[in-house]
Amino acid sequence: MSTTDRAARLALAHLVEPGSRELGLLTRRVGAPEALLMAVHGGGVSEPLAGAVRARLDAAGLGTSTGSADAWAERVAHTLAAAMTERAGELGARIVTAADDEWPLALDDLTRISQEGADVLRRDTDPPLCLWLRGPVRLEETMERSVSVVGARAVTGYGQFVASEFAFGLAERGWTVVSGGALGVDVTAHRGALAAGGVTCAVLACGIDQVYPVSNSAVFERIAEEGLLLTEWPPGTRPHKTRFLTRNRVIAAATRGTVMVEAGSRSGARNTLGYARRLQRSTMVVPGPVTSAMSVGCHVELRTPGTVLVTRVEEIVEEIGHVGELAEPIHGAERPEDALDATQSRVLDAVAPRAVRSAEEIAAIAGVAGRDARRSLPVLEQHGFIVRTNGGYRLASRSGP
Amino acid sequence: MSTTDRAARLALAHLVEPGSRELGLLTRRVGAPEALLMAVHGGGVSEPLAGAVRARLDAAGLGTSTGSADAWAERVAHTLAAAMTERAGELGARIVTAADDEWPLALDDLTRISQEGADVLRRDTDPPLCLWLRGPVRLEETMERSVSVVGARAVTGYGQFVASEFAFGLAERGWTVVSGGALGVDVTAHRGALAAGGVTCAVLACGIDQVYPVSNSAVFERIAEEGLLLTEWPPGTRPHKTRFLTRNRVIAAATRGTVMVEAGSRSGARNTLGYARRLQRSTMVVPGPVTSAMSVGCHVELRTPGTVLVTRVEEIVEEIGHVGELAEPIHGAERPEDALDATQSRVLDAVAPRAVRSAEEIAAIAGVAGRDARRSLPVLEQHGFIVRTNGGYRLASRSGP
Repeated sequence: MSTTDRAARLALAHLVEPGSRELGLLTRRVGAPEALLMAVHGGGVSEPLAGAVRARLDAAGLGTSTGSADAWAERVAHTLAAAMTERAGELGARIVTAADDEWPLALDDLTRISQEGADVLRRDTDPPLCLWLRGPVRLEETMERSVSVVGARAVTGYGQFVASEFAFGLAERGWTVVSGGALGVDVTAHRGALAAGGVTCAVLACGIDQVYPVSNSAVFERIAEEGLLLTEWPPGTRPHKTRFLTRNRVIAAATRGTVMVEAGSRSGARNTLGYARRLQRSTMVVPGPVTSAMSVGCHVELRTPGTVLVTRVEEIVEEIGHVGELAEPIHGAERPEDALDATQSRVLDAVAPRAVRSAEEIAAIAGVAGRDARRSLPVLEQHGFIVRTNGGYRLASRSGP
Repeated sequence: MSTTDRAARLALAHLVEPGSRELGLLTRRVGAPEALLMAVHGGGVSEPLAGAVRARLDAAGLGTSTGSADAWAERVAHTLAAAMTERAGELGARIVTAADDEWPLALDDLTRISQEGADVLRRDTDPPLCLWLRGPVRLEETMERSVSVVGARAVTGYGQFVASEFAFGLAERGWTVVSGGALGVDVTAHRGALAAGGVTCAVLACGIDQVYPVSNSAVFERIAEEGLLLTEWPPGTRPHKTRFLTRNRVIAAATRGTVMVEAGSRSGARNTLGYARRLQRSTMVVPGPVTSAMSVGCHVELRTPGTVLVTRVEEIVEEIGHVGELAEPIHGAERPEDALDATQSRVLDAVAPRAVRSAEEIAAIAGVAGRDARRSLPVLEQHGFIVRTNGGYRLASRSGP
């Protein structure tokens, strides 16, 4: 029996926290089975990585070699992969790796930013080794036209309204709404998409068997029925703050762009937007009152060049949709005066509401030639702006002040 | 007696609506006295300009030549200039032209955009011929450090709050707050600056003797006492819609930048901002809720490249102040966890609130090496995040969920 690529990836996903740049580089260089062998033996890998693998092997009762190095690694791969596959089956979930058709290639863009180095990013950002999925939708297909809608947990009524409207409108137009399953903006966005009968995907920072937060359990069930629950952590993993931050890179990478609805100055949503920016995805932000603490993070981001302010679903689609999916410009109500030329406007401005003025007086007040006034006045009369009376003109009552 | 430059400018300001590109070009080419001569005679000027001058000459009873062409023009200049100077005296006002020390040179930038042509701008945008001023402040000095605060008349409570806060804060920092004296954002900005004991300047679209709107008369009186009332229209001129739009170019040109607080999609404030953009002044816009009709114009402008989103006075000053007048970055409250490194954070995340876990368990959960966990745990204990108990660790109560 030799270790398959898939089994090695599943085992590594169990043994190493997601995003590890060292493991990602190693796997791309020597392949997953060889990387697993090295990680299990602690040869050719860093001390922290070897130690981390060792701690998980010990916890899984696989910490002792019995026989050759290869045999040990094979046993680890086999045991962990079998356990995960079985557990996935029990949970109605499937496991997808980069070798599967369902893998969204967009995630591989994370390799690029991972190579920029941990110094810049302050954490490991390699692509996931594998993904656990629950839901009837094919991941790679649904992500082709997807947008993430993220924001603070401590959402205001305003943020709830916007998140809900945007998610509903995006789903209605066939866009997959991706978010993180948290309270606040996340769950509001998921609900908005569901309400439109659309597809929504919750990217979790814990095992697919975990329900966090518990109050969102009903939404998670509906997402699993109509959309996708997705995570890179094996079943049993609990969410943690650092995991939320690691998870955010997947939300940013899997989608065409990220919309931030409300965020305080330290919101984790800013972290997602930061990944989107590094990945050269569209970074879209909803403004709010400058008096709202929950829009402070939004405004800081909007002051960063390249961030696009969005106020309507159409503007989001214009930003990330196909060429030609342009938002209609916002028009104020058309006014009859809009049809007037500059001279006619000036002449109209010089006609008084009550006092009757001669064409000559009107010309002098408007600062136009008498001839221009005498040409404009009948046009203005014909359009109902002014009335002719006692040899002069005054405003028609509907144009009165 | 020959016509002085000043008298010719005053007469032309009476005879021709402000901003005339044709008159501006002519005056710069042949000088104001010669331009007046041509305008009065209608020789070498366009028919609309000649006709407009004729209409005003007739209205002023100066429409008939009595003697030589030069004598006629001299009589016009003398009569109108004398009347204006006398009227200015009666009103406690002074008249400033480009030849005076008090003239703000920034206004001459309008020549540049005027030359881009009327097609683009849809109206004449030449610099004013002269300015009527009321107030104890020297115009050119106060405009050196000035910013316009503009917006809709139909201001909301939010817009009032922001306009007032910004104007107060700007005035407090020694900035002159310039606006248009209208209801809504304008008057709120003037009041805010006055409340700070600062200088504010109202640029009117009517004669300096007109009080429009009447409800702002008390504010205008205070501005005349402590700041500046300013207009390019001669006394007696009533405000009109087209005059507001013409006036806006002066607000934009005289100041270092324009801040738009609230504006519907068709607000005249957008016109001012447009002039600021063409004049390469800073264009700053305050965001608001995307649900507010009174922020629609703001958001359209913010989607235009080069527009700066501002949320605080400091950000305005950073934009238009001297090099080094930088806004403090917005920091969220510092948290004790901020001092932790990545490994320590992961270890802390793996410590449970109640269940006591061993260092090895914590390492496996965190996905770090046992040695790294054993190094981090005492640090976390020392900082009060966790407590050691029964041979393991749990969260200290203050870090509990």
